[in-house]
Amino acid sequence: MVDDLRRELCALHAELPRNGLVAWTSGNVSARVPGSDELLVIKPSGIAYDDLRPERMVLCDFDGVPVEDALAPSSDAATHGHIYRELPDVGGIAHTHSPYATAWAIHGEPIPCVMTAMADEFGGEIPVGPFALIGDDAIGRGVVETLAHHRSCAVLMRAHGVFTVGRGPRDAVKAAVMCEDAARVVHAARSLGPLVPLDAESVDALYHRYQNVYGQH
Amino acid sequence: MVDDLRRELCALHAELPRNGLVAWTSGNVSARVPGSDELLVIKPSGIAYDDLRPERMVLCDFDGVPVEDALAPSSDAATHGHIYRELPDVGGIAHTHSPYATAWAIHGEPIPCVMTAMADEFGGEIPVGPFALIGDDAIGRGVVETLAHHRSCAVLMRAHGVFTVGRGPRDAVKAAVMCEDAARVVHAARSLGPLVPLDAESVDALYHRYQNVYGQH
Amino acid sequence: MVDDLRRELCALHAELPRNGLVAWTSGNVSARVPGSDELLVIKPSGIAYDDLRPERMVLCDFDGVPVEDALAPSSDAATHGHIYRELPDVGGIAHTHSPYATAWAIHGEPIPCVMTAMADEFGGEIPVGPFALIGDDAIGRGVVETLAHHRSCAVLMRAHGVFTVGRGPRDAVKAAVMCEDAARVVHAARSLGPLVPLDAESVDALYHRYQNVYGQH
Amino acid sequence: MVDDLRRELCALHAELPRNGLVAWTSGNVSARVPGSDELLVIKPSGIAYDDLRPERMVLCDFDGVPVEDALAPSSDAATHGHIYRELPDVGGIAHTHSPYATAWAIHGEPIPCVMTAMADEFGGEIPVGPFALIGDDAIGRGVVETLAHHRSCAVLMRAHGVFTVGRGPRDAVKAAVMCEDAARVVHAARSLGPLVPLDAESVDALYHRYQNVYGQH
Repeated sequence: MVDDLRRELCALHAELPRNGLVAWTSGNVSARVPGSDELLVIKPSGIAYDDLRPERMVLCDFDGVPVEDALAPSSDAATHGHIYRELPDVGGIAHTHSPYATAWAIHGEPIPCVMTAMADEFGGEIPVGPFALIGDDAIGRGVVETLAHHRSCAVLMRAHGVFTVGRGPRDAVKAAVMCEDAARVVHAARSLGPLVPLDAESVDALYHRYQNVYGQH
Repeated sequence: MVDDLRRELCALHAELPRNGLVAWTSGNVSARVPGSDELLVIKPSGIAYDDLRPERMVLCDFDGVPVEDALAPSSDAATHGHIYRELPDVGGIAHTHSPYATAWAIHGEPIPCVMTAMADEFGGEIPVGPFALIGDDAIGRGVVETLAHHRSCAVLMRAHGVFTVGRGPRDAVKAAVMCEDAARVVHAARSLGPLVPLDAESVDALYHRYQNVYGQH
Repeated sequence: MVDDLRRELCALHAELPRNGLVAWTSGNVSARVPGSDELLVIKPSGIAYDDLRPERMVLCDFDGVPVEDALAPSSDAATHGHIYRELPDVGGIAHTHSPYATAWAIHGEPIPCVMTAMADEFGGEIPVGPFALIGDDAIGRGVVETLAHHRSCAVLMRAHGVFTVGRGPRDAVKAAVMCEDAARVVHAARSLGPLVPLDAESVDALYHRYQNVYGQH
Repeated sequence: MVDDLRRELCALHAELPRNGLVAWTSGNVSARVPGSDELLVIKPSGIAYDDLRPERMVLCDFDGVPVEDALAPSSDAATHGHIYRELPDVGGIAHTHSPYATAWAIHGEPIPCVMTAMADEFGGEIPVGPFALIGDDAIGRGVVETLAHHRSCAVLMRAHGVFTVGRGPRDAVKAAVMCEDAARVVHAARSLGPLVPLDAESVDALYHRYQNVYGQH
C-alpha cells in the first residue's frame, strides 16, 4: 500500500511543474498513509522533479522523521505532519510557492470569491494565514487555525506560499492548481476595476452542486 | 458518423490545455450530431484531458441525458443543448474559463474591438452576458440572447467564463483561442493607456474580408 | 534552391508557436527567392502550424499570385511582395500578432529603447507605423515608410501587429522573437515606474558592436 | 575533467529556455575549470540552444580568449573571467536577460525581500548594479562591487539583465531561476499594493536554515 502511495505521489509531483506551480525544487506533496495517525509519505528535500522516482519518496512520522533508511524528507515534512495530526479527514497536502497565489500572500489580502470556479472549488474566498517561520509547528498551526474558519481547502500563508488539503493527494494537487488559477485570474480582473464578490446564496448553491454533482459518481 | 465526431472532439479537447485555456478539467467542447435537432456529443464530467479517449465522449440529448450507457456528461451538457436547440446553424460549442477572458467576465465589460484580429474573427466587441447559475437553462438563455445582438461568436458570461459557437466544433475551439488571445492583448494594451475602438467601417471591411477571403476555399 | 527555401521556411514557422508569437494560424514568414526581384515563398493561408510541410509553402510573385498550382498563399503575400520590391536588401519577412507587441501597437506608442538588448537588435526604439487596411498596398507602404526613418528591423503596425525584416527569413524571425521579448519586458518595466531611454551614444556603441562582433564570423 | 564540465554546461544551458529565462540565443552559463585561476568554459556566441553540444563549449582564459581552436566564445566571456579572477570562491556564473528581472533592472530598483523564498535563496534584497557597456571590464567590475555589499548571489545590472554566481554552474543557474521567479512574483504583488520587506531577524533565520539544512547532506 505504501508502494502505491509512492507511485501516486511521484506522478502527482510531475503536475507541479507542468501546471507552472513551482520554480526549481520548491514545492511538495504528501499523503497520509491511509488510516494511519502517525505516518506520511513526502518528497525528498532539494531533489529536482525530473529526478524523482517512487522509491525516493520518503516515509516518515508526523514529526518529519524518516522511519527507515531514506533520503532526507522535505523540510516541510513536520508541517504536513502537524496538519494530518490535527485534521483527521485530511489525506493529502500540497505546498507550493506558485507565483500569483504567492503575490496575494505577500499582499496579505484574501482572494475574494468573484467567479463561479472559486465558489465551486473553495466555497468562498481563499483566506490568508499568519506569517510564521519554518522550524517548529508555527506554520502547521497557522494552516489549521485558518482552515477552521473557512470552507476553503487552500490557505495563503503570509509572505510565503500556499498550502492545500484534500481527502487524498490528488485532491490537494487539484486545489493547488485551481488556487493558482484563481489567483491569476482575479489579479488580472483587479487591474481592470474594483472586484465585487458573488452573493453568499449563489456561492452556496455553486459549492454544494460542485461538491455533490460534478464528476463521475 | 458519431464515431468520427468522437475522434474529432477528442483531438479538439487537446487544444484546450495546449492553448492555455483550461485549468485541470475545467473546459469542454461539444458537437451537434450533424443534421440532428436532438443529439450532441460532449466531454465526460471531471475527466483529465490526458485520460480522454474517443470512446469516452458522451452522446446525449439536448437535455444533457445520455442516450446510451456512458460516463456522466459534462455538467454543462444541457446548456450546450439549449444553444443547439435555439440556434440551428450552430454545429459546435466550446466553453472555457480561460484566464484573461474570465478576468474581463469578472470585470463585466465587453472587450472593445481595438485590433484588426478582433474585427476579423468577432466582427466587433466581445459582449458580456448575464450572471446565471448552472442547473436550469439560465446560462443557455443568457448565451443565446447575448449572441442575438452581436456578430461575435464568443460571449463572456459574467463572473463565469466564455462560450463560443461555430459551424462545427473546430470553429468553436478556434474562437475560444482567439477570444483568450484578444482578452490578453487588450488587457495588456489597457494598462498602457485608454483604448480607442476601431471605426465601424474598418471593422466591417475586415470582418467581411476575413469571413470570405481568408484560408483555403 | 526553392526547395531549400521551402524547407527553411517550414522549420522557421515552427518557431512562431514555440516562442509564443501566434494564436492558431495568425502569423507568417516569407523569403525572397535569392536574387529575384519578382518571386517569394510564403505560408499558405489558414493552415495550422502542425500541418505545414515544405511542399505546401507557396511560391508566388510580388503581387501575391501563385506561379504554379498551389494552396492559396497567406493573405499578407502582396504586402510581403511590396516590401521586397521597395527594399532590395530585404531577403526575409516575418509578420505576427504577438501579444505584447500588439498591445503596444494598439496603444500606438513606440517601444522606447530602455535596455541593452533593444539597442543591440533594433538600434533604438521600435517605431509605430500607420493604421492600414489589408487588400491593397497600404500596409506594405506603411511598413516601408516607417522603416525608412529608423534603424529598427521591426515595425508595430497600429492596431494590428508586427512586421520584421532581415537579410534572410531567419533574421526576420529572430527579430520577431526579440521584438516580442522587448515589448513584454518594457511593458513590465513601465508598470514599475517611468521609462528613461538609454542615451544615444550608448545605443550607437551597443548596436555597432552587436551587428559586427556578436556571433560566429 | 574539462570534458565533464562541457557536458554539465551543455545540460545546464537547456535549463535556460526551459525555465523561460532567455529569448533566442541571449543567455549564457560558464564554469571555472576547478582549481584554476585562469581558465573557464562557456557557451559559444550566437548559437541556438538546440544546437549546443558538449564539444562546442569553449575553453578560454579569463580575458575571454580561447586556448584552443574553437568557436568564438560568448561575447560576455571576459566579464565572466573578471568575476572569477576577483572572486575565488565562485565556480559558476549565469547571465540572462530574463523578462521580469530585466524589467526591475530597467526600473533600477532592488527587488525587496518580501517573501520567504527570497530570504532563503538571496538572504535579502536583490541589488542593482551600475549601467555599464560591454567591451572592457566595466560590467565585471560592476557585478563584483555590487556583490561585495550584499549577501545576494544575484545582481540586476541596470538596463541590461542579471548575473548570478554560485559554487558551481548548477548553483548559478538555480539562482537565475529563483531570481526570475522572485522578480515575477514581487512584480505581481506590487501591483496589488505597497510592499513591506520582511524584518531582518526573520530574513537571517530563513537564510541560515536554507543554506545549512535544506536539501540532501
